[in-house]
Amino acid sequence: MTTETVTGEAELAATLDAAERASRPLARLRPAQRAGILRGIAQALDAAGDELIPLAERESHLPRARLTGELTRTTFQLRLFADVLDEGTFLNATIDLPDASWPTGARPDMRRTVLPLGPVVVFAASNFPFAFSVAGGDTASALAAGCPVVLKTHPGHPELSRRTGEIIDEALRETDAPAGTFALISGDEAGRTAVQDHRVRAGAFTGSATAGRALFDLANSRPDPIPFHSEMGSVNPAFVTPRAAAQRPDDIADGYLGSFTLGTGQFCTKPGVLFVPSESTARFEQRLASSLEEHAGGAMLNSRIQRGFQESLTTLTDHPAIRVITPARPTEQGSTPSLLATSAAELLRHHDQLLTECFGPTSILVSYSDEEELAAAAELFQGELTATVQGTAEEEIVSRLATLLQHRVGRLVYNGWPTGVSVSHAMQHGGPYPATTGSGHTSVGTAAIDRFLRPVSYQNAPAEILPEELLDENPLGVARRVNGVLDTTGGALTPPETP
Amino acid sequence: MTTETVTGEAELAATLDAAERASRPLARLRPAQRAGILRGIAQALDAAGDELIPLAERESHLPRARLTGELTRTTFQLRLFADVLDEGTFLNATIDLPDASWPTGARPDMRRTVLPLGPVVVFAASNFPFAFSVAGGDTASALAAGCPVVLKTHPGHPELSRRTGEIIDEALRETDAPAGTFALISGDEAGRTAVQDHRVRAGAFTGSATAGRALFDLANSRPDPIPFHSEMGSVNPAFVTPRAAAQRPDDIADGYLGSFTLGTGQFCTKPGVLFVPSESTARFEQRLASSLEEHAGGAMLNSRIQRGFQESLTTLTDHPAIRVITPARPTEQGSTPSLLATSAAELLRHHDQLLTECFGPTSILVSYSDEEELAAAAELFQGELTATVQGTAEEEIVSRLATLLQHRVGRLVYNGWPTGVSVSHAMQHGGPYPATTGSGHTSVGTAAIDRFLRPVSYQNAPAEILPEELLDENPLGVARRVNGVLDTTGGALTPPETP
Repeated sequence: MTTETVTGEAELAATLDAAERASRPLARLRPAQRAGILRGIAQALDAAGDELIPLAERESHLPRARLTGELTRTTFQLRLFADVLDEGTFLNATIDLPDASWPTGARPDMRRTVLPLGPVVVFAASNFPFAFSVAGGDTASALAAGCPVVLKTHPGHPELSRRTGEIIDEALRETDAPAGTFALISGDEAGRTAVQDHRVRAGAFTGSATAGRALFDLANSRPDPIPFHSEMGSVNPAFVTPRAAAQRPDDIADGYLGSFTLGTGQFCTKPGVLFVPSESTARFEQRLASSLEEHAGGAMLNSRIQRGFQESLTTLTDHPAIRVITPARPTEQGSTPSLLATSAAELLRHHDQLLTECFGPTSILVSYSDEEELAAAAELFQGELTATVQGTAEEEIVSRLATLLQHRVGRLVYNGWPTGVSVSHAMQHGGPYPATTGSGHTSVGTAAIDRFLRPVSYQNAPAEILPEELLDENPLGVARRVNGVLDTTGGALTPPETP
Repeated sequence: MTTETVTGEAELAATLDAAERASRPLARLRPAQRAGILRGIAQALDAAGDELIPLAERESHLPRARLTGELTRTTFQLRLFADVLDEGTFLNATIDLPDASWPTGARPDMRRTVLPLGPVVVFAASNFPFAFSVAGGDTASALAAGCPVVLKTHPGHPELSRRTGEIIDEALRETDAPAGTFALISGDEAGRTAVQDHRVRAGAFTGSATAGRALFDLANSRPDPIPFHSEMGSVNPAFVTPRAAAQRPDDIADGYLGSFTLGTGQFCTKPGVLFVPSESTARFEQRLASSLEEHAGGAMLNSRIQRGFQESLTTLTDHPAIRVITPARPTEQGSTPSLLATSAAELLRHHDQLLTECFGPTSILVSYSDEEELAAAAELFQGELTATVQGTAEEEIVSRLATLLQHRVGRLVYNGWPTGVSVSHAMQHGGPYPATTGSGHTSVGTAAIDRFLRPVSYQNAPAEILPEELLDENPLGVARRVNGVLDTTGGALTPPETP
């Protein structure tokens, strides 16, 4: 494995200087120009697929088909944010025309839009070497917002990171992007220093709870705290109702197995526990055990993650409340999937030890005795990226679970599986702490751009100083809220009536 | 002055328990029902004006006319949030229908809305005994969001707080509000304990930088950090261009004086410095000094604030770079306004000492020699609620200042004054740190509701578990983004075409 060259102090300072210098020129670009930047990067990455995918394969041990799909997702995501920029509702443009009769006193002309925060430090993840790494969703949404990106590479794929960075660099040179718009840094120390540097105005991270919380704490302990969005993974409980278990036991067992073993279990949305009614437990166990027997397993991303997985797995299997249904068998760079079991009663007693994320191919089958116990178990979860319910719509327990779980997750999945996070407008990839440090935001989907913008309003401002989206003429043709009413025509302001 | 009864440990625990119990039932109410709650409170407060205003007058020393206006603002604000609930775009309802051809893989049915965070602790401010206190903007926006409010009273107006709380209580009993929707707590210790309590899910504060930061730090140091929105005041610089100074010196001087002395200087938007070109400085000084000579001054809110003001004022007047134009003359419960002066050159040298908020009736007139110096001075400001430019639209320096200042403030005021914060849709009352701890949000205006909501998405969910705003039929008639396109008709979904 290639090892990373760590960014030194002087180089880091120069990088942050350049990012700060790029910050205002980048903010001044029109949304359409920033869209051009994103499309330029997407095109360059697509063109380099034949070079990048083998590199990713070698460094991440992920299969080629998955990596090909992931690169598609990554460039699609860049283009989707370009579309967001062209469409313009992300600006939340709001205009209140003067109103002398406004009950709190004559209302001035007030116009509100959003501005980029400034340089953002993004921490790449290991498990998505494209989609959550150098050119991933955090980078795409920060650049879309108009923020220079200082990307802290993940040491798991140093060569791929370096080459992706070079390709982005070359692509940027052919766009309107000012110098300093994008740069790579490497090494934990450089990352920590960047989070604390006054030039950096926001941060985003995908990875472990420990690192995510530590960086969040650094960001908040600054003399001038900055928003820091850590997405830290999750247990992602799944609940099978009595009727679903009776009607579709094999489908559900197969779907569950596919989901928790996907990508060798290295997804932050991996279902870590499946609740099944006690009367169906034997059937689920049997089906799962028999499928797992033949499972070839897969490689893990790197030896550090492999060690971490083995340690957490051993902690779980050593627990007296855990029964091993299928043990993990070591493979060359990982292991075959394992399946554990316990009862809801035991889980309620030992949730502190049993309900922690175990990043890798394992999951716990939990047998519950009745709906009361199932609802009580649902209340154990405080902050999850997802929760899944397998049921039938008429069952009272389905509504009951949904009511409970919606307050504890970012995404509630019904009769599906949580792995596979669609990049779309309605996606919410986030959730209450400890799933993330900022449950008000998503790190996947078009709304991710909001993390790097802040509102600003202009009072009685003349056209000369107003951003284009707030001009009477609406030259950008964006949707605007005028006097409280959404106008999606993209048209000019109708001249205010003079009384 | 009546002193406060401090909330004891057991009482606080009971209050937080009740807030937690109210949290889900309140979240389940329809927006229209929450609108009814807000209108009920507004009506009760309006009806109690004859009782409340004299109480406020006695405890805050603010004049009756101001307090009458402030109560109007407060009940208007409650009703405006009721309108926000009826209108429904605050939900950001978003629907992505299934799309088998979606480039990242078949897109499931994905629907996104927002949910309330849960119990919110709100810290009342001293300087707006109605509009930023018990029934103020934080309370109104948190209740609108569907969050129970635990309100930490300000010790400056204990009787008014108690009575306002009782009136809210009585009003709530005639609405759909569950028990525990609203409660008062008192005492700094109770406030700090609430911020750290697991049942509390968010906080909002208006007041000093020290207290605001300390509470923000407490909120972030929790095992489960919560969003904490501190609005901490600001220097609010104002800039007069050469041409404006030549064309409208007296108007500008009078407007400035009116703004920094309004409410005895006790506004977080008080302009703390006014930059004037050196050639006009004498004229400004003369006009201001002559008006201030006759100024009767006013009472300050309480003796603690009065002492604080005198201390900061002395620190300023003792500074060698500061010249006193008009000294403060003590009045019964305050002082007459004072005016200080310095040069931009001195300010650039001593900004660390000179550019701190001095809460009370004083401001610094700063003489600048040329536009370069003015632009350099504008760059001293890092995080302000507002900045003001007095100029003419054609001047290049106006655009230059606007470009610089928009990245440093929440609101840019042109040819007006920053005091007087309109409660409207386009208002942004916030700004980068140290003006607030959450520059992504506003504490005034309809967007303030966003602070207490978080998005959640439902994947492939049946009608039985979807919130009403996401149902195909759109029974709430709200605007929704469907497949990326805003639909403001409030109509039902058009059935997806089956390929």
